[in-house]
Amino acid sequence: MTPPIRLGMVGGGPGAMIGPTHRIAARMDGHYRLVAGAFSRTPERNRAMGEELALSPDRVYADYREMVETERAREDGVEAVAVVTPNDSHVPISTCFLRHGIHVLCDKPLANSLADAETLREVVDESGCVFALTHNYAGYPMVREARARIAAGELGAVRIVQAEYASGARSRLVEAAGDEKTAWRTDPAIGGPSAVLCDLGVHAHHLLRFVTGCEVDAVSASLATMVAGRTSHDDAQVSLRLGGGARGALWASYVAAGHRNGLRLLVCGETGSLEWWQERPEILSLHTLGGSSRRLHRGDAGLSADARAATRVKAGQPEGFLEAFANIYRDVAGWIRTPAGQRDHAPWPAAGVHDGIAGMRFIEACVASDRAGARWVEA
Amino acid sequence: MTPPIRLGMVGGGPGAMIGPTHRIAARMDGHYRLVAGAFSRTPERNRAMGEELALSPDRVYADYREMVETERAREDGVEAVAVVTPNDSHVPISTCFLRHGIHVLCDKPLANSLADAETLREVVDESGCVFALTHNYAGYPMVREARARIAAGELGAVRIVQAEYASGARSRLVEAAGDEKTAWRTDPAIGGPSAVLCDLGVHAHHLLRFVTGCEVDAVSASLATMVAGRTSHDDAQVSLRLGGGARGALWASYVAAGHRNGLRLLVCGETGSLEWWQERPEILSLHTLGGSSRRLHRGDAGLSADARAATRVKAGQPEGFLEAFANIYRDVAGWIRTPAGQRDHAPWPAAGVHDGIAGMRFIEACVASDRAGARWVEA
Amino acid sequence: MTPPIRLGMVGGGPGAMIGPTHRIAARMDGHYRLVAGAFSRTPERNRAMGEELALSPDRVYADYREMVETERAREDGVEAVAVVTPNDSHVPISTCFLRHGIHVLCDKPLANSLADAETLREVVDESGCVFALTHNYAGYPMVREARARIAAGELGAVRIVQAEYASGARSRLVEAAGDEKTAWRTDPAIGGPSAVLCDLGVHAHHLLRFVTGCEVDAVSASLATMVAGRTSHDDAQVSLRLGGGARGALWASYVAAGHRNGLRLLVCGETGSLEWWQERPEILSLHTLGGSSRRLHRGDAGLSADARAATRVKAGQPEGFLEAFANIYRDVAGWIRTPAGQRDHAPWPAAGVHDGIAGMRFIEACVASDRAGARWVEA
Amino acid sequence: MTPPIRLGMVGGGPGAMIGPTHRIAARMDGHYRLVAGAFSRTPERNRAMGEELALSPDRVYADYREMVETERAREDGVEAVAVVTPNDSHVPISTCFLRHGIHVLCDKPLANSLADAETLREVVDESGCVFALTHNYAGYPMVREARARIAAGELGAVRIVQAEYASGARSRLVEAAGDEKTAWRTDPAIGGPSAVLCDLGVHAHHLLRFVTGCEVDAVSASLATMVAGRTSHDDAQVSLRLGGGARGALWASYVAAGHRNGLRLLVCGETGSLEWWQERPEILSLHTLGGSSRRLHRGDAGLSADARAATRVKAGQPEGFLEAFANIYRDVAGWIRTPAGQRDHAPWPAAGVHDGIAGMRFIEACVASDRAGARWVEA
Repeated sequence: MTPPIRLGMVGGGPGAMIGPTHRIAARMDGHYRLVAGAFSRTPERNRAMGEELALSPDRVYADYREMVETERAREDGVEAVAVVTPNDSHVPISTCFLRHGIHVLCDKPLANSLADAETLREVVDESGCVFALTHNYAGYPMVREARARIAAGELGAVRIVQAEYASGARSRLVEAAGDEKTAWRTDPAIGGPSAVLCDLGVHAHHLLRFVTGCEVDAVSASLATMVAGRTSHDDAQVSLRLGGGARGALWASYVAAGHRNGLRLLVCGETGSLEWWQERPEILSLHTLGGSSRRLHRGDAGLSADARAATRVKAGQPEGFLEAFANIYRDVAGWIRTPAGQRDHAPWPAAGVHDGIAGMRFIEACVASDRAGARWVEA
Repeated sequence: MTPPIRLGMVGGGPGAMIGPTHRIAARMDGHYRLVAGAFSRTPERNRAMGEELALSPDRVYADYREMVETERAREDGVEAVAVVTPNDSHVPISTCFLRHGIHVLCDKPLANSLADAETLREVVDESGCVFALTHNYAGYPMVREARARIAAGELGAVRIVQAEYASGARSRLVEAAGDEKTAWRTDPAIGGPSAVLCDLGVHAHHLLRFVTGCEVDAVSASLATMVAGRTSHDDAQVSLRLGGGARGALWASYVAAGHRNGLRLLVCGETGSLEWWQERPEILSLHTLGGSSRRLHRGDAGLSADARAATRVKAGQPEGFLEAFANIYRDVAGWIRTPAGQRDHAPWPAAGVHDGIAGMRFIEACVASDRAGARWVEA
Repeated sequence: MTPPIRLGMVGGGPGAMIGPTHRIAARMDGHYRLVAGAFSRTPERNRAMGEELALSPDRVYADYREMVETERAREDGVEAVAVVTPNDSHVPISTCFLRHGIHVLCDKPLANSLADAETLREVVDESGCVFALTHNYAGYPMVREARARIAAGELGAVRIVQAEYASGARSRLVEAAGDEKTAWRTDPAIGGPSAVLCDLGVHAHHLLRFVTGCEVDAVSASLATMVAGRTSHDDAQVSLRLGGGARGALWASYVAAGHRNGLRLLVCGETGSLEWWQERPEILSLHTLGGSSRRLHRGDAGLSADARAATRVKAGQPEGFLEAFANIYRDVAGWIRTPAGQRDHAPWPAAGVHDGIAGMRFIEACVASDRAGARWVEA
Repeated sequence: MTPPIRLGMVGGGPGAMIGPTHRIAARMDGHYRLVAGAFSRTPERNRAMGEELALSPDRVYADYREMVETERAREDGVEAVAVVTPNDSHVPISTCFLRHGIHVLCDKPLANSLADAETLREVVDESGCVFALTHNYAGYPMVREARARIAAGELGAVRIVQAEYASGARSRLVEAAGDEKTAWRTDPAIGGPSAVLCDLGVHAHHLLRFVTGCEVDAVSASLATMVAGRTSHDDAQVSLRLGGGARGALWASYVAAGHRNGLRLLVCGETGSLEWWQERPEILSLHTLGGSSRRLHRGDAGLSADARAATRVKAGQPEGFLEAFANIYRDVAGWIRTPAGQRDHAPWPAAGVHDGIAGMRFIEACVASDRAGARWVEA
């Protein structure tokens, strides 16, 4: 094993949910070592997190600009940074690190507008650095198995794609309760033009593209705010036209009361269909014409090379969310360690700036369609 | 027990799938005795079915008109008739029997157009007879439990309704294979303006109305024909606006390859949600805010009177499709035995002409919305 | 269809659970017509049941002897009788009918002792009549599929058989509550030497024999009475030695609190295993070495002739307990209609006197082993 | 966070399955840093593993004795060691480290005989060090929830305990294929007196004790070797008498063809029952008298403090085997950091020498009972 990649983190202070996830994902396989951070704009919270993580106090920075300035001057400065801040800051922070030659792993969505997202494309291209978007659900082995089987033609041409992300986390006006760490999501200035799409829908959109290889060509969307007092959408019903003549629907909801983290995908092709559900991620269900139903389990014999490579323990010892997230970190580590000139030819399942732009285009098309009385809008 | 109701049947000859189902449903509780039939327009097939059912040969008729004429003249003539013919003949056949004072149990959908459906309303009202539409899925005990719990306010106001009916039965061009008994469904002159909606979608539409008590106010629909050579829709994606401000989606498909009879319903309210799946009909899943998940089983203690009344054996001895269908027949028997003047006040879960009209209005609105580029159309 | 078989019933008065099940099973396919009964020894209850069933009052008898005497003298007397009384009367009642040339469908267990059971064998042989034991779980299509696949060698030689029947119905001392209709089961004089084995264990024992084709050679049993005040066993743990070198275990319990009717079977062979669970009876799970898992559904293409023959509706329209029970009645009707001399060569999945004797031998061996400190006892 | 505990490892060379699991578990929360190892007795494999882990070459030792000698002399020597070798070496290696004041995390089972296991008890007591047995399944949050609920009396007194560990990993004679890394398990000199019990049964035994708080008082066992050519047991059927009058059964199998890692537990009490299955570890099913069934999910509101403390991400983001294993490592880190005099009073879910001795006593009792014709033997 080559020595771990020196990692910095922006965001992820005390109480943030996504910070610990990124840190465990970075730690799991020993490919990264967290050495610096700007975790919070509140000095004492920032310091506290540095201490909890046993970082050297001089590498706990007041903000990301200070981190860039200081770390680039160190011989052992950070090589990569994890950006786990609210959505509106993803582009400026990523831009700053990339311009100083530091690789970026950035939380989704890429930006709060398509225009912002597109500005980043050039920055990435000029930087010669890796820019990865942590679309973590694509890290699950059985999601990769699904992709491999569709790519191999096992279902025939794709006809129908049903994606959903059902959460009940915002069935009440939780943000009014002053819950600072989540209130930003429904503030359009920070969380983007449609909270449920920027937070959940964009995951479902990436998942269906990743698995089927189809792009979304057009959408007919119905967006709603079901909870009184909320300032952004909490439910989205979207009909889809997909490349190759496929059809489908995407449902994302914050108000599916009692649901946990219900990301599901169903893909129907000419000769069979497959289903995957994030809450039971070890199983990929396959149905074929004539009625045979199989359940493929992560770790079973006969799975694709992609699924096997994304696996740590044997079948029947369940892997989960953190292992899938760690697979993204591991893929990106491999990418970082690949010389810049050779990266284009390597297989790279982790999402990049192109995927982030597709996500923003989808979100803006949904908003436009909803405003136009659900008419079809190109995405 | 009062003596069984004398029943006739129109349609349901050899090879038809729905005929045996209606006959078992009629037979199960002893409330009906099949005494006459016009099963097929092919004389030898008609005769063969009469023999198989041990009917008196003089009560096996060449067509329904002959049946009406002859039976009404007998003292022991049929009191009710089951109409299990292709869709285009439901209204004329039902009209004929009702005008002669014979109760009707008719397969869905009611008609092939809203206009036709509406003509039947007056006939029913004038007849003083029972007209029941066999929306059989409303016969499941746990569907009735779902309705009872929503009516009792257990979920709070309904916000989201997701209904689907996924079948893979027509993933191939089965009708081109000359399969006479199913080819009529995709012939618009016989099967109606949108095969997948007239056959499957109308069940999902009735189910969601039955369970939530909400009417569909408007639809935004995307209808497709995925299989080359097919002459009617085989996939329908519909966004819904429902009474009381609820939203939702309905997906009906003939091309969900490998799916069997996947009618599902998810209803999310302010404080909880419930799910029911026809292929595992004994379970009603309930989720509440805060994360408690319950599985109610048919036959458990604590269920509603409606669910209990629809039950024959104890919990853990699974009931299924035929018992649910027989519940409709049993309900209708009770209705037939109720004096005409008293019927309005009796609870009646089985569907009637009003429900059939709502179904046709939904189908026509979907077709109109699809033609108008998915714009919202009132239903 | 030949005319229905004229059926009588002994037992199954108001409030009894098994009576309605037998009557629906007899009615479902139109092969039987219930024409006579001795439902209860309480005259008014007996009369009430006759009325509820719309029987002619002169064919509602005070007891089974009167029924035999009167019916045998009628030209249109009963051809077969369903015996649904408590266990201790199965042998004398069956004997009486068989001796008068009337076929018998008898509830399990066959008797309260092996000695009693064996006396019936000769009676059956001499009668030339059909004697069927309603081991109803063998009527499920997917149980028959399991049998067909094992017989075809799909699992290789059978190695392990795990059977269980978990019920929580007697977690409390329900019989002390004076619940007359169930109190007899734990009275050894009526319900037999071990209540949980005579009621539940004998079903699991028959199921494993039916599916695997293996006989139980020896048992090591631990029987317990967990509920204070109970006068018979309510839990049985039995290790098994089976024909062909297989091993296994059988667990039957009345005190699995919160369990409904949890009859399960797992069979492991050299190259694969299968699982079936009565509460989800439409699915047979198959696992093979190397990790492929399939779920076969009742009605799917590719199932055995036995499973197909036991099916009424298409896949995805769930069948259940009553259809399985009706399959036994249908099989027996076929048997009754087969000339006596030809019956030996017909396939006959329904259980007979031989199976009933095997069940009693198993129960007595368990009791003996338990008394001998769990030592192996031949069965 | 205090600095990570300096960890050594004995065993876990290239190709071993358990090595990577322990290393990820140690790494996940940042509580340990692996600094030394004696991974393999084959020098090149040992070296290769050190390199893969980026260890300093001078801390990759030829054997555990060299590791102890050298490390104890370093100021920054290992504070704790993970022993992941075959079973016969657990006691001597652990003894060696403990005698030099180094804490031990040892794989199960503790030993190959009860006598050996008991010798370790004194060593642990004299050492003042932590000795932990990695009974990793007790690390699952919902296993801890099960324990908490039973301890709180939610099921009433425990009556029935059914534990099973079904694996098909040795349905063929895999060890004859010269698969060095697994062949030792069925060699009694290395793997212990009964392979299936030492490898799998001992996990089920620990799980049932951990969850119910009941000790196994006596066993009636039937042990078998189903695969020709195998030199140890591959299937075990055990009836149990438990403290407090409970009964139960334990089934452990290597020949449940097609099964993965099927550790299951069912506990029935006076008023309810609970079920947990390792392959779907996020759910604890609870059934109560009267028929209500709940599914508690890891991360839901309302769970016990023990379950909450064992959790890293929110409900619906599945945790699995590695997180459960890491919980043991995290618990032990807390223990190590607790001053020796204060440890007795701290809650400590991880297993210790006492649990290891109970496991060996159980195994030896099973072997004795099997030899005595399944008679009851005290455990």
